[in-house]
Amino acid sequence: MPHVLLQSLERVERVIARCRELASITDVAGETTRTYLSPATRDAHALVLGWMREAGLSTQVDAVGNLRGLRAGLSPQAPRLLIGSHIDTVVNAGAFDGILGVVLALELIEDLADTPLPYAIELLAFSEEEGVRFRKPFLGSLAVVGELTPEDLALPDAHGTTMEQAIAHFGLDPAEYAAARLAPESFAYLEIHIEQGPVLESEDRPIAAVHAIVGQTRMSLRFTGQANHAGTTPMHLRHDALAAAAEWIVAVEKLGQATPGLVATVGSAEPKPGLGNVIASEVLATLDIRHADDDIRHAAVAKAVAAAQSAADARGVTLSTSTSIDQTAVPMAPHLLALMEAAAKASGYDGTPLTSGAGHDAVILARRVPAIMLFLRSPGGLSHHPGEAVLIDDVEAALTTAMEFLRRLRDDVLSGSAQAGREAHA
Amino acid sequence: MPHVLLQSLERVERVIARCRELASITDVAGETTRTYLSPATRDAHALVLGWMREAGLSTQVDAVGNLRGLRAGLSPQAPRLLIGSHIDTVVNAGAFDGILGVVLALELIEDLADTPLPYAIELLAFSEEEGVRFRKPFLGSLAVVGELTPEDLALPDAHGTTMEQAIAHFGLDPAEYAAARLAPESFAYLEIHIEQGPVLESEDRPIAAVHAIVGQTRMSLRFTGQANHAGTTPMHLRHDALAAAAEWIVAVEKLGQATPGLVATVGSAEPKPGLGNVIASEVLATLDIRHADDDIRHAAVAKAVAAAQSAADARGVTLSTSTSIDQTAVPMAPHLLALMEAAAKASGYDGTPLTSGAGHDAVILARRVPAIMLFLRSPGGLSHHPGEAVLIDDVEAALTTAMEFLRRLRDDVLSGSAQAGREAHA
Repeated sequence: MPHVLLQSLERVERVIARCRELASITDVAGETTRTYLSPATRDAHALVLGWMREAGLSTQVDAVGNLRGLRAGLSPQAPRLLIGSHIDTVVNAGAFDGILGVVLALELIEDLADTPLPYAIELLAFSEEEGVRFRKPFLGSLAVVGELTPEDLALPDAHGTTMEQAIAHFGLDPAEYAAARLAPESFAYLEIHIEQGPVLESEDRPIAAVHAIVGQTRMSLRFTGQANHAGTTPMHLRHDALAAAAEWIVAVEKLGQATPGLVATVGSAEPKPGLGNVIASEVLATLDIRHADDDIRHAAVAKAVAAAQSAADARGVTLSTSTSIDQTAVPMAPHLLALMEAAAKASGYDGTPLTSGAGHDAVILARRVPAIMLFLRSPGGLSHHPGEAVLIDDVEAALTTAMEFLRRLRDDVLSGSAQAGREAHA
Repeated sequence: MPHVLLQSLERVERVIARCRELASITDVAGETTRTYLSPATRDAHALVLGWMREAGLSTQVDAVGNLRGLRAGLSPQAPRLLIGSHIDTVVNAGAFDGILGVVLALELIEDLADTPLPYAIELLAFSEEEGVRFRKPFLGSLAVVGELTPEDLALPDAHGTTMEQAIAHFGLDPAEYAAARLAPESFAYLEIHIEQGPVLESEDRPIAAVHAIVGQTRMSLRFTGQANHAGTTPMHLRHDALAAAAEWIVAVEKLGQATPGLVATVGSAEPKPGLGNVIASEVLATLDIRHADDDIRHAAVAKAVAAAQSAADARGVTLSTSTSIDQTAVPMAPHLLALMEAAAKASGYDGTPLTSGAGHDAVILARRVPAIMLFLRSPGGLSHHPGEAVLIDDVEAALTTAMEFLRRLRDDVLSGSAQAGREAHA
């Protein structure tokens, strides 16, 4: 495989330039905002489909607006590698979240043009991952794994337009959504993505394999005490909801610090009435707990709730809780993880795996096909922000490692290991 | 003195009925809202002036709208006892805060009609104490102590009407405000008020003398950290402003609990951006610290700020603080306090003094004249609330004790002690 070309600055610069070009296609002038099937999406489709054809792919837009580019295999029944990420954005986004994975895949495919492979490659540019328009994420990848439902199609956006209507209005046929399902020959899914966190930067590493996407629990906790005059109510006669919540917030932080791999966050705590001279009668707070191991996560959630109850009880404050999300962790396929780590090492990088603390299309694809992710360092840990960036050397590291991964996957397919992994997954 | 009549249920019921009648005079139907010189104030004035005349007082409305009723002394130079409280209310108020002190004074004066006294009595129904209309409290009592300023008269209300215009519109002459000053013969000020807190109820006592009105510090503290993704940012790489604020809130509560007589409150803490899956970048919080001893209060404030700095430093969070109020404590006059305690004891009550955690007109009057307060139990600790109440037995206790106080004050004046107290105060 042609390493020299891959490592060229020219290729890396094209990747970054393409991400920036796509970022200029927006529904809101002066920022990058391109939600599911928005007006700007039409131009984004034209651009990405053009790049796919340049790379020699036969293209198609499926019924939910995913762009699909196929490099056929030696036979129609050849095993199919899926490579993908998403091309929708959050509001006022950066240029790389999602997009980078699509653009990097294009470089890999173009670079492999003259190289025979024992597998087909399908590039998937998912139409919807961020969940902005219909307040439900992963609509594009859900269609690909066959889990999009009629209920999803009936979801309304902020203007009352349903997903079904949005698809029809865009010129696609919503009735065809079931045909978006992945080919049965698909044997692996690769997603390259920015880390969206500060770990690689703090460890001075360009890339890492991902060993799992965390499971997460999201809860809201309501502490109800009693409002009283801050001047006339002695400390021992108070039922201070904010003091109770504060003790718990500190306990949640300690729990996160004491449990390797756990992140535990109280991001919001709203005291009522929220006046300087009135003891708070109520605090509504959030809890977000994530870990790659669901048992550890559930144990941590139980400890956090117990700490809240104890902080409430100590003050004659009552506690009520509700859980909005309890999402299981998604391990990456072990054989693909081993290939990716080895590919990084062979390319001269420390690919020691990270846990992904955020969700990705790989969460959904992993339900049907062995999946692996490769992360690039996020300068400043930034994402979902116009300041989102990538470093030139890191893009080169990702390209080199991913190409080495594709080479090892070739050997794997030829030896039958990949098919065994596929069967183990199913 | 006629104890039998004082203790009669009829008299107590008249006190409560008058408070309720005054509460029905409101600017907002269905609640009690009567701010400074509002339309309803005209009817309230007519009612209270009528009661004053019934009690044999010669009445006057001073330039800032205080109602003043005089029972003359044996000579124009006779020492003058001031008894007062306020008749304005907060928004959606109860029936007793302020009003009760005026109505109880009327009963005392009426009851003393045939009793010769060596002092004159001036009943002051202050026009403004709550600070609702011009966002500055104590405007009525400030005029009485000669501390109302031209700047105060220029204060605008929410509609842009100045205090001066409001006075003129009400039919009074704002240019005469200096004439509202108290008579130089004034030798003592008595204010009877509901406790507005839960202490007497928790101690199962009807009344208490007040030994001091707390000094208070009000501050705002801003914790500035860094917003980050709750899933992708490991605990050790966070700068969590809410965790820092929470540690501090717990420290403030502990400080209050560990310092006798101190109340320390964080009533508001607003995290930004306030999202469940984002580490808080900023928290703006309030601090309210009160104590009867200014040195203890200042030491507590220093400890609270140090705790905030330490909680911030531990997380790479920065802290900024600003102080909006630093108000000194106001001790009640020792000789009047001793008289009140003795009066309570002689009347069969435990008058052991409380600290007032809230401000009162007595804070202002004490600048010019020895002052004393008598508190009545607040059922449920409620005030500034439609549920504000008094118990019949407690009103009787207050009337009996206050009458005994007036009797002892008479002996005091006759012996010259009161005049000595007046001179010691000056």
